[in-house]
Amino acid sequence: MRKLLLILILLAGHNCLYSQQRVVDAIFSNALSSDVAYENLRVLCETTEGRISGSPEAAAAVEFTRQIMTGMDLDTVYLQEVMVPNWKRGEPEIARIVSSKYGNTQLNVIALGLSVGTGPDGVSAPVVEVSNIQELEELGEEGVRDKIVFFNRKPNHAHYNTFDVYSDLVGLRFRGPAAAASFGAVAAIVRSATTAGHDYPHTGVTRYEVGGRNIPSVAVSPAGAEVLRRQLAGDSGLSIYLRTTPYRRPDVLSYNVIGEIWGSELPGQIITVGGHLDSWDNSPGAHDDGAGCMQSIDVLRIFREEGIRPKRTIRAVMFMDEEISQRGGNKYADLAYLNGEEHYFAIESDRGAFTPRGFSVDASPEKLKALQSLLPYFTPWGMHEIFAGGSGVDIAPLKNYYDMALAGLITDTQRYFDLHHSANDTFDQVNRREMQLGSGAMAAIIYLVDYLDILGPGQ
Amino acid sequence: MRKLLLILILLAGHNCLYSQQRVVDAIFSNALSSDVAYENLRVLCETTEGRISGSPEAAAAVEFTRQIMTGMDLDTVYLQEVMVPNWKRGEPEIARIVSSKYGNTQLNVIALGLSVGTGPDGVSAPVVEVSNIQELEELGEEGVRDKIVFFNRKPNHAHYNTFDVYSDLVGLRFRGPAAAASFGAVAAIVRSATTAGHDYPHTGVTRYEVGGRNIPSVAVSPAGAEVLRRQLAGDSGLSIYLRTTPYRRPDVLSYNVIGEIWGSELPGQIITVGGHLDSWDNSPGAHDDGAGCMQSIDVLRIFREEGIRPKRTIRAVMFMDEEISQRGGNKYADLAYLNGEEHYFAIESDRGAFTPRGFSVDASPEKLKALQSLLPYFTPWGMHEIFAGGSGVDIAPLKNYYDMALAGLITDTQRYFDLHHSANDTFDQVNRREMQLGSGAMAAIIYLVDYLDILGPGQ
Repeated sequence: MRKLLLILILLAGHNCLYSQQRVVDAIFSNALSSDVAYENLRVLCETTEGRISGSPEAAAAVEFTRQIMTGMDLDTVYLQEVMVPNWKRGEPEIARIVSSKYGNTQLNVIALGLSVGTGPDGVSAPVVEVSNIQELEELGEEGVRDKIVFFNRKPNHAHYNTFDVYSDLVGLRFRGPAAAASFGAVAAIVRSATTAGHDYPHTGVTRYEVGGRNIPSVAVSPAGAEVLRRQLAGDSGLSIYLRTTPYRRPDVLSYNVIGEIWGSELPGQIITVGGHLDSWDNSPGAHDDGAGCMQSIDVLRIFREEGIRPKRTIRAVMFMDEEISQRGGNKYADLAYLNGEEHYFAIESDRGAFTPRGFSVDASPEKLKALQSLLPYFTPWGMHEIFAGGSGVDIAPLKNYYDMALAGLITDTQRYFDLHHSANDTFDQVNRREMQLGSGAMAAIIYLVDYLDILGPGQ
Repeated sequence: MRKLLLILILLAGHNCLYSQQRVVDAIFSNALSSDVAYENLRVLCETTEGRISGSPEAAAAVEFTRQIMTGMDLDTVYLQEVMVPNWKRGEPEIARIVSSKYGNTQLNVIALGLSVGTGPDGVSAPVVEVSNIQELEELGEEGVRDKIVFFNRKPNHAHYNTFDVYSDLVGLRFRGPAAAASFGAVAAIVRSATTAGHDYPHTGVTRYEVGGRNIPSVAVSPAGAEVLRRQLAGDSGLSIYLRTTPYRRPDVLSYNVIGEIWGSELPGQIITVGGHLDSWDNSPGAHDDGAGCMQSIDVLRIFREEGIRPKRTIRAVMFMDEEISQRGGNKYADLAYLNGEEHYFAIESDRGAFTPRGFSVDASPEKLKALQSLLPYFTPWGMHEIFAGGSGVDIAPLKNYYDMALAGLITDTQRYFDLHHSANDTFDQVNRREMQLGSGAMAAIIYLVDYLDILGPGQ
């Protein structure tokens, strides 16, 4: 009799597992069969290209996503105020090699975020090439003063994960210009941090210490970096004329855009799913991160269409200002704490809308293990990895207040840094099915986490 | 003492495993750091676009790949004669809807391989729409005779694997026109078997029974299929004017192109790595399957550059005529047997140059298990699946003679059927890193299979 009971319990458990897999499968099938998020991304890219924080395009993107969610039969849609930086690129940059041997050669460059300009007359100076900061330090002030420093570090393609390739390069973009400034350089040109060899420059923010000198700083396309390298090798006396006119205006009021489905049992516990709404001003921001926003909204659509009533409140958040100062993410976490909210789980999509491979988890070992136990639900959908790692820039500030599990959607990384932070990040580089699998993956993990209560009590 | 010995043996085993992983890692890193195969693919796509069997472009592709391998310090490079079909599309197809309600509308269509033409005057006939062969049979001769049958079956996007989406569609392309012909139809228009919604038609071969009627048959783009569907719904009396002029010439002499690195210990045992050199005549054939050919050659380059001396002979084969009659693959297997060759392992890349996910294996359960034991070497490189399934169309005929293990490189499938058999299969849709990971994956599994002798004695 006890044996029979045991068998019945096991069968019930099996049926339960089976029925959850059926919900997961229905979620993915729904995602793959829909083009709503994809078509909304098309409109976002076409109408709000270059939506850097503080720009009219960013304001339009706020309104567009608010309208999308308002039309979706959600329980509430609202804006969360946040003051954001207001840095402007100014006029298109000019960079010209002037060589007595090779003549004049234009380079495709783009100012780095937060860098100052050369003024309308530009600067002209000889060039010194280094591949890392140590080489710069060895040159010292004597070798650098009144020169333009050319940081030329090539990608190491031997890494499988292109985030590792990028990590090896981005340090120079962050710290190179400030270091060059400290030695008296007049400007800095940084080879774009990209896996591609094309003629697009890739921008991104650069960092200056408070009180440190800020000099005109640009990224040069990888093709341009090769031209400059070759010409320098043949004519070390060449100079570069550089003209950039970025400027900064006072911070402006902007918004995180939020839509919610309220929980049926534990409405006070929040599950956040998000991406960031701002992009760089030179880019349609399709993969980075228009897609992450549209996928997050799509999670709510899938819950509604599949008739899944979550126990907890699911909140889709379009964060503002990820690219420059992460004000939106910080404000979101601060307000959560100040308002006494309970947060249960958060996930972000900001690694491009490529085929999902798994989840990266920032959590205690117990919560990581609980999330890893969900892997079998995802392997039929091509996802094989749930591992400890970073989550997302915008949700990470929740860790300041909550001992909760944060996750990032991990996607195939091979193409991401071909387009990241460049004019090459266009809608036509997004594949509908790859993007929609991401919507499905996030909806499925939220469903499982919520339904199975695997992350312990809320906080 | 025996304990110490055991520990030493275990350590030796561990070091061995460790050192094979190091070779695997070196292979992948080499692949990712090279652009040789990628740049050769660029030339192949630019100079031999439309290299259907029997065409001048196919002949040029034979010579191009022969020259590449001749310049590579291989042990031998040679051509293997094969007579191939010589079907020509003729002039660009014309398809026009003629409706009293909607006026005239051009459709993007392309003749299906081996179909006959309408003759220079074209045909004009009313249209009947079906979504499968059962519906056609229900209409019967009464409903079909003297009409153009429009096979309009939409993709079921709910499948994760797009080969499953394709499988559900391609049967109509294979069998629909012959079935329509048997009921007296004058022509057939088949919705392209694709996951995309664009205006490219996707061709492919269609099958007629020996002695059966062959009627003019075309694929229409998915966008065109939607136009036709809508107009038919509003005007069932519309007709279509169709003009196609394909024709067939006598078979011509062509070649499989072969390069070898001879084995250092077991040179008589062959390991084959291949792709097919022909493409459809409307396509650059970048993913299908120029990339597979260049990856196969790249396997030899990697062995040479990494100084890996295989025990067995590794043979890269560019198969001719995969798309129409698979003559190259059949000839290769027939000659292998007739020449008394021993074959140990074969692998093909013909699923697009996307990020590798694993291997599909056609082998006995023992050999499958042996290959599955290699999975841990591949997980650091993002490959998580080794499963029983088909290998490749060109190497499959080896099964006629050998009880050997055959494998196919499994790649991310999401984008493949957006471009397969269409003018959309262009070089710029190939990502260098994704393609190179495929070269690395095939080189690595060949290295492991050969070095570890895991497939038993040769045959």
